[in-house]
Amino acid sequence: MQFSELIRRSVQVNGRGAAIVDLGNGARRSYEELACRIGQLAASLRANGVVEGDRVAIISENSGHFIEAFFAIIWCGAIAVPLNFRLTNEELTQQIDDCEPTALFISPRFVDRLDGLNKVRARLKLCVVMAESTETAATVALGSMVDGRPEVRPFHWDHDDAAAVILYTGGTTGRPKGVMLSQKALIMNAYQSAALLGNTAGMRYAHVAPMFHIGDCAYIVAVTMHAGCHVVIPEFDPSRVVDALARERVTHVALVPTMINRLMAEPGFVGSELKWLANIIYGASTIPESLLRAALEALPGVQFGQSYGQTETATITVLRPEAHVTSGPAMGKLRSAGQPAIGAEVAICTPDGSEAEPGEVGEITVRSQSLMSGYWRNPEATRESVRAGRVHTGDVGYMDEQGFVYIVDRLKDMIITGGENVSSPEVESALHQHPAVLECAVIGVPHAEWGEQVHAVVRLHPGAEVEEHALIAHCRSLIAGYKCPRTIEITADPLPLSGIGKVLKRDLRERIARKAGC
Amino acid sequence: MQFSELIRRSVQVNGRGAAIVDLGNGARRSYEELACRIGQLAASLRANGVVEGDRVAIISENSGHFIEAFFAIIWCGAIAVPLNFRLTNEELTQQIDDCEPTALFISPRFVDRLDGLNKVRARLKLCVVMAESTETAATVALGSMVDGRPEVRPFHWDHDDAAAVILYTGGTTGRPKGVMLSQKALIMNAYQSAALLGNTAGMRYAHVAPMFHIGDCAYIVAVTMHAGCHVVIPEFDPSRVVDALARERVTHVALVPTMINRLMAEPGFVGSELKWLANIIYGASTIPESLLRAALEALPGVQFGQSYGQTETATITVLRPEAHVTSGPAMGKLRSAGQPAIGAEVAICTPDGSEAEPGEVGEITVRSQSLMSGYWRNPEATRESVRAGRVHTGDVGYMDEQGFVYIVDRLKDMIITGGENVSSPEVESALHQHPAVLECAVIGVPHAEWGEQVHAVVRLHPGAEVEEHALIAHCRSLIAGYKCPRTIEITADPLPLSGIGKVLKRDLRERIARKAGC
Repeated sequence: MQFSELIRRSVQVNGRGAAIVDLGNGARRSYEELACRIGQLAASLRANGVVEGDRVAIISENSGHFIEAFFAIIWCGAIAVPLNFRLTNEELTQQIDDCEPTALFISPRFVDRLDGLNKVRARLKLCVVMAESTETAATVALGSMVDGRPEVRPFHWDHDDAAAVILYTGGTTGRPKGVMLSQKALIMNAYQSAALLGNTAGMRYAHVAPMFHIGDCAYIVAVTMHAGCHVVIPEFDPSRVVDALARERVTHVALVPTMINRLMAEPGFVGSELKWLANIIYGASTIPESLLRAALEALPGVQFGQSYGQTETATITVLRPEAHVTSGPAMGKLRSAGQPAIGAEVAICTPDGSEAEPGEVGEITVRSQSLMSGYWRNPEATRESVRAGRVHTGDVGYMDEQGFVYIVDRLKDMIITGGENVSSPEVESALHQHPAVLECAVIGVPHAEWGEQVHAVVRLHPGAEVEEHALIAHCRSLIAGYKCPRTIEITADPLPLSGIGKVLKRDLRERIARKAGC
Repeated sequence: MQFSELIRRSVQVNGRGAAIVDLGNGARRSYEELACRIGQLAASLRANGVVEGDRVAIISENSGHFIEAFFAIIWCGAIAVPLNFRLTNEELTQQIDDCEPTALFISPRFVDRLDGLNKVRARLKLCVVMAESTETAATVALGSMVDGRPEVRPFHWDHDDAAAVILYTGGTTGRPKGVMLSQKALIMNAYQSAALLGNTAGMRYAHVAPMFHIGDCAYIVAVTMHAGCHVVIPEFDPSRVVDALARERVTHVALVPTMINRLMAEPGFVGSELKWLANIIYGASTIPESLLRAALEALPGVQFGQSYGQTETATITVLRPEAHVTSGPAMGKLRSAGQPAIGAEVAICTPDGSEAEPGEVGEITVRSQSLMSGYWRNPEATRESVRAGRVHTGDVGYMDEQGFVYIVDRLKDMIITGGENVSSPEVESALHQHPAVLECAVIGVPHAEWGEQVHAVVRLHPGAEVEEHALIAHCRSLIAGYKCPRTIEITADPLPLSGIGKVLKRDLRERIARKAGC
């Protein structure tokens, strides 16, 4: 199963139809043009020494060039590695050191970051600026790589599980974890979602969430599979998004709950003004039920679908549009993450490894055709995650009698804030680097807009003094802004510890909930 | 990819919902009951000596038991072989001799045919009558095999291309050809159709066409995948079908064009009376455009989808509901077989092996995840059909600029009458066995209801005399009734021959068309 086959079919059935509308640079491409540009770009990559199995990184906001680069890299047999541009240079360098790309696509917006990535740059065979042309002789413009060059035939991948994409997960204090996804995994995920979330021929999908995340990256594949139109929005600006949805007659969009929340406040989003909009798919973090109810009421003509999954698994469960009701026999499921997706064998595992009864809490595990092929060069982490062919998600939950899954806690120490995964140990490690900090624990606390907000509880060394804002600034110098604590409680008391000496984060969360209740 | 996983999920998400409504015996089963019965039946098969890789035949009209037997055979690691009960005992014996089943499921309606299949019966470990109970001690009732017995765990198939089903094609005068289909092929076909033909959770599908054909057999898998309801209609009787569609709130049905034609004459089918009916999928033979236009007009609330394929390939192209219009920009495609299905790499091949230009005629070839694993114990035939991973369909056609495929002729000498494949050489062979016949050619001639009708042109030995009806009766003694010529032209002239001595059937067809035009 190869992306090149999907592209070939989309050219057959919709060659002159719109493939890409890029609202950043105004470019519009038909499927014939897109396929031609991908084949030419792949030929240029080959001509510049990129060989099969090479990693090629992408550092870019959403753009039509992102889609071209993504497919061209895989077309020529290399592995696409979209990176999170919100990371610090140090964090990016860690990921780049891990996957050792031989080429890099970088958008004009981030070209000045190359100075901070000098060590990386020295190793590259090729550094492509994602623009039609560029002023400097030192860089190659993507546009010049697709300029009349003969196309190359797609590389033939000899097995279905070969990695075609690497996406880095939130990461921990240890080395970053690159999730290897095959073309098969992404194609099967697109089939599985299509059957449940209303993807169809003729769909016009708005890329609003960042393409380097699995949530939107999955739609690069799914929309192309249906020969639909990619409406690309470079960054999330509520009024521009609403304007784009209306003007480009968008039918489908995937959003994280914080985006829905912001859009709800935007004139033109609610009511009947977006008459083409048929489906909103949301996921990546828990949606507050009050927000979901408000959205259902405000957008009666739109079908809502929730997709729950991880980078390692793609879609695990789906809350179908039919379950997004506040009355009738199908009501009462809005707090759930939905039912197993078609093709996903979901089991709740108790600590002794047996399958939980309905209602019984355990770890959510899944086997499907969309699982990762493993973590890049990290067999130990892969063995820990994938046991007997099942990914152990680290999420704790239960399944009710109708197969609806409810997530109650996360085994992995992870905070999801505005759709971004933040690893608590990583933030704790940053805090610990401040000389005044003796003990600390980082947890997620409920937040109306972001789902969760990063909160730290810090115990200082005796006699030490530091202000909350100074600790936050210290973190900012080390890790990406979205990972830094928004609020810090400074305490003189020891943190509550479990028997084996781990901080009892549940106790901290309960104390905060009690305070909030006063 | 295994059916057991689909069944497991359907129990999770719709355990108490209807899985089967059998309008033959009135039985209704939930998904919990169906899964339990399949597991028990599989256990009984094992206990009776059926082992992995064994073939288990089914001779039955459509029934809930058919679905149970189909899944149970595969559940225990054996290969299901649904046979065409319209064949003569001799024809059936040929197929049974070819696949050598160790067990047989047979419906009460056909039990008396066992006498004619004595040679076969002697070899069987097990012969199951598809009824809840049976009077005779000599046979085992399916019902007794699911009676409180503990379920067995599904067999773990170690590779995705392993044959799980064998379906015999129209066959030729040579040995019958058993098409081996894997679970993966049938599951991928269900995904591919779902994305284009409107299969959804909550679907209620009527099994009207015979389950031993790929056209309906595919829906045993697809409906189960969506946890939908199988509404099983034992045989095609127009008024019973219309009644069932209404009473059981059927949403989806797959029909051959002749069935649509007959239903159109039935009160209650047209108009708005079948208000639950959302999708009619048709295929298996060419639909007269006049019939299609009449059906579109009579059933404005129904979405029509055409699926073109073969047993060897499953779905190749799909004419989507959006193309079933007689006005607007999407009109003008009703004579086509539609566009390549998602995941189907369709290419029109010219005789020199290159790919045809749009509009250029060539052989229709396809590569996809739904192809057969080969012909059962017939590597030569497999090599002839599957070259470089592509099935060569034997159908000749062209593709237009928008990817719509038009079928203009069949390379294989096959007549499709009422959805049944009839091999001309087989009928010719039967005719040749009559002492009066010197030369003959069997062709399909257009027929308003059947699509094509079997017609023979026969040249007698000098001085010999035989009546048309006597020749037809002679054929009936040798081959199934639907294969026998409906009309025979007896001529004294030599048949027109090509350079290498083959009858020029195209000339015969043109002569008949000219006569019809007079």
